Amino acid sequence: MTIRANDPSLRSWVDVPSGSDFPIQNLPFGIARRKSGDAPGVVVAIGEQIADLRVLAEHGFFDDLDIPRAVFSQPVLNDLIALGKAKTSALRNRISQLLDSDFDEWDASELAHFFLFPQTEVEMLMPLRVGDYTDFYSSIEHASNVGAMFRDPQNPLLPNWRHLPVGYHGRASSIVVSGTPIRRPKGQTLPVGADVPVFGPSARMDFELEMAFVVGKNTQLGESVPVADAEDYIFGLMLFNDWSARDIQQWEYVPLGPFLGKNFGSTVSPWVVMLEALEPFRVAGPKQEPEVLPYLQTEGPGNFDLHLEVWIRPEKGEAARVCLSNFKYMYWNMAQQLAHHTVNGCNIQVGDMCASGTISGPDAGSYGSMLELSWKGTRPIALPDGSTRTFLNDGDEVILRGWGERNGVRVGFGEARGALLSAI
Amino acid sequence: MTIRANDPSLRSWVDVPSGSDFPIQNLPFGIARRKSGDAPGVVVAIGEQIADLRVLAEHGFFDDLDIPRAVFSQPVLNDLIALGKAKTSALRNRISQLLDSDFDEWDASELAHFFLFPQTEVEMLMPLRVGDYTDFYSSIEHASNVGAMFRDPQNPLLPNWRHLPVGYHGRASSIVVSGTPIRRPKGQTLPVGADVPVFGPSARMDFELEMAFVVGKNTQLGESVPVADAEDYIFGLMLFNDWSARDIQQWEYVPLGPFLGKNFGSTVSPWVVMLEALEPFRVAGPKQEPEVLPYLQTEGPGNFDLHLEVWIRPEKGEAARVCLSNFKYMYWNMAQQLAHHTVNGCNIQVGDMCASGTISGPDAGSYGSMLELSWKGTRPIALPDGSTRTFLNDGDEVILRGWGERNGVRVGFGEARGALLSAI
Repeated sequence: MTIRANDPSLRSWVDVPSGSDFPIQNLPFGIARRKSGDAPGVVVAIGEQIADLRVLAEHGFFDDLDIPRAVFSQPVLNDLIALGKAKTSALRNRISQLLDSDFDEWDASELAHFFLFPQTEVEMLMPLRVGDYTDFYSSIEHASNVGAMFRDPQNPLLPNWRHLPVGYHGRASSIVVSGTPIRRPKGQTLPVGADVPVFGPSARMDFELEMAFVVGKNTQLGESVPVADAEDYIFGLMLFNDWSARDIQQWEYVPLGPFLGKNFGSTVSPWVVMLEALEPFRVAGPKQEPEVLPYLQTEGPGNFDLHLEVWIRPEKGEAARVCLSNFKYMYWNMAQQLAHHTVNGCNIQVGDMCASGTISGPDAGSYGSMLELSWKGTRPIALPDGSTRTFLNDGDEVILRGWGERNGVRVGFGEARGALLSAI
Repeated sequence: MTIRANDPSLRSWVDVPSGSDFPIQNLPFGIARRKSGDAPGVVVAIGEQIADLRVLAEHGFFDDLDIPRAVFSQPVLNDLIALGKAKTSALRNRISQLLDSDFDEWDASELAHFFLFPQTEVEMLMPLRVGDYTDFYSSIEHASNVGAMFRDPQNPLLPNWRHLPVGYHGRASSIVVSGTPIRRPKGQTLPVGADVPVFGPSARMDFELEMAFVVGKNTQLGESVPVADAEDYIFGLMLFNDWSARDIQQWEYVPLGPFLGKNFGSTVSPWVVMLEALEPFRVAGPKQEPEVLPYLQTEGPGNFDLHLEVWIRPEKGEAARVCLSNFKYMYWNMAQQLAHHTVNGCNIQVGDMCASGTISGPDAGSYGSMLELSWKGTRPIALPDGSTRTFLNDGDEVILRGWGERNGVRVGFGEARGALLSAI
């Protein structure tokens, strides 16, 4: 599949600094408002600017694409996504043409001061109304690390793990956009050696480095999405921090899974990068052994080579990178996750989010959570300010970053950042 | 608290047959349309009729209650519920006055043929837009039965069970209204003695008899609802069938809980009975030992004496009652569930649903699932047509019913029914 808007030779008349996540080959969608109180609307990122699509729509640039102008004035992307990939792909291509320095038929450069605004001058909002949110557990390195810590180092994976992409339902209401502070949760924990729980703030606050995909197409209850078609139901991807309170989680999770250890907050990047913009970074995933059941068998490369980082910025210190991982490590790919999710007839809806689970790689510097990086709190990590961490301190800001890079083009997600506030 | 609309001496000028769930002391809310294609709107049940609140609103009967008429023309109850209990309680009281044969100040009897319609002539729709759905596990008899079957009969409860109301997030998109058929799901299961899973239709289809409460008031992320205030956040209750595929669930659920074994469908009653209409049935719950942590301690009776039944109607047979239970058996009450749910700052929203978990009682006839009634498939149940069941057959219709009865007044929920279709 050749996608014109992905062509590495394209250049925009908008300045795109070296190292920007947002060249003309990306054009991720988000929701922004210029200042508090303004009506929010649909934007794309280009370099250090945002392009307000309401303005471009009002000038008729999208009129031939059969897209109602009203979708650009919605407070979330759901209606835009629900138009379907044929239209949203055509829209991305048109925006690319409007911003392309060499494309003469369509050009918006003369209107630049009407629709381009510095990202520093807009507020990015939660871009989706998330109906249901599912979290998978699809990194074999992460699952193995956790299994080794809490069960058996010689046999860390549970019997089902290599046969199905383990997942569970999470909380949709508490997914917040990058920049929103997260309050340290209180709850029940079981002190070591005790047989009665105590109540108080979590002492083992953690992040989880994840990617999430956004569902782009509804199904009916009872319908299953074949694995070969599954990517048609994926609109795009976001960075996702699945904040976790390990001590609360450990006491509560048997037998029905995580609940209060997770549902106090999750942070997403403000930008949804369309799946088609990530085509240049497609790679094969790990070989799956034993062979998976037919409904989970995929052909061709189903993973994506996306460089992922986690940084911690202490309240009064400088940020330090604590994790360098890659989305390509995933054992189960997104098509398999979605085929599995719907094989029983569970319906999906535009705006639903499916997160990957913590993305850890093979070496210790690639582990995607403090739980693994500090190996259950036993190996403190040193930060540049001289302090150490086993889990997160109050005031720590956690920053997720991610991008693909190929042929000199970097397509990125911006950041998913959030500071940890002290418990009330 | 004395609630005028609950007065057992009230009589309606609308005929309410003996044994009806819907006397003037109930007035549950729902969403109905007269025929396919008609716009849906808000209704209440009275006897064998529904009262169309749009019509009553248009006649100005609610104008002094400061309720926008538009909320009665919504396709879901969320906007009505979001008005808050002061207004919805006043609304219920006004409807009671309008239908009361002895109340002279307000009377709608002359308009009867404009706003009353037989329930048999309307289609009841899913009455809520459910943001998030949580399922608890709060019956000690159910948890003990499951623990005895799958773990240790001498020590069936896990260590956390008596300290917190165990719960997990379920699927909101697949909650359907009574009457919607449910398709038998396909999925992975592990045959007895095998170490590799197989794929196919579930062979252990089950119901779960539950009640669910509907959240009536938003909180902000980071906020906790004190247990003493928790009932202020509960608008009303519904019957809830948490359909379960036991074989799929058993293979998938470790370590992150139920997923495809549950999310293919849940059935609710079309009626939401306001919590205040259930006040006459309030009773004390079981004594909790050991004492729970302070944030979970409630005063006064927090349970409700609601008679609950499950019936199975084979495809070509007559319905038989297979379970007779009661909501009063719950070990953890709703206030405790909601206080626990939010103690970590998890936010809740109007329309969220929290289900109780299977409601089993102390004796075998009160078990709220086939898993328990047939004791893991070892004790077949005989139906009147001579057939037996360990789990559900294709074509079986499962019918949940529930009501409170006191001082000659029965306040009920109608039915949550659904037929099991064969796998595709």
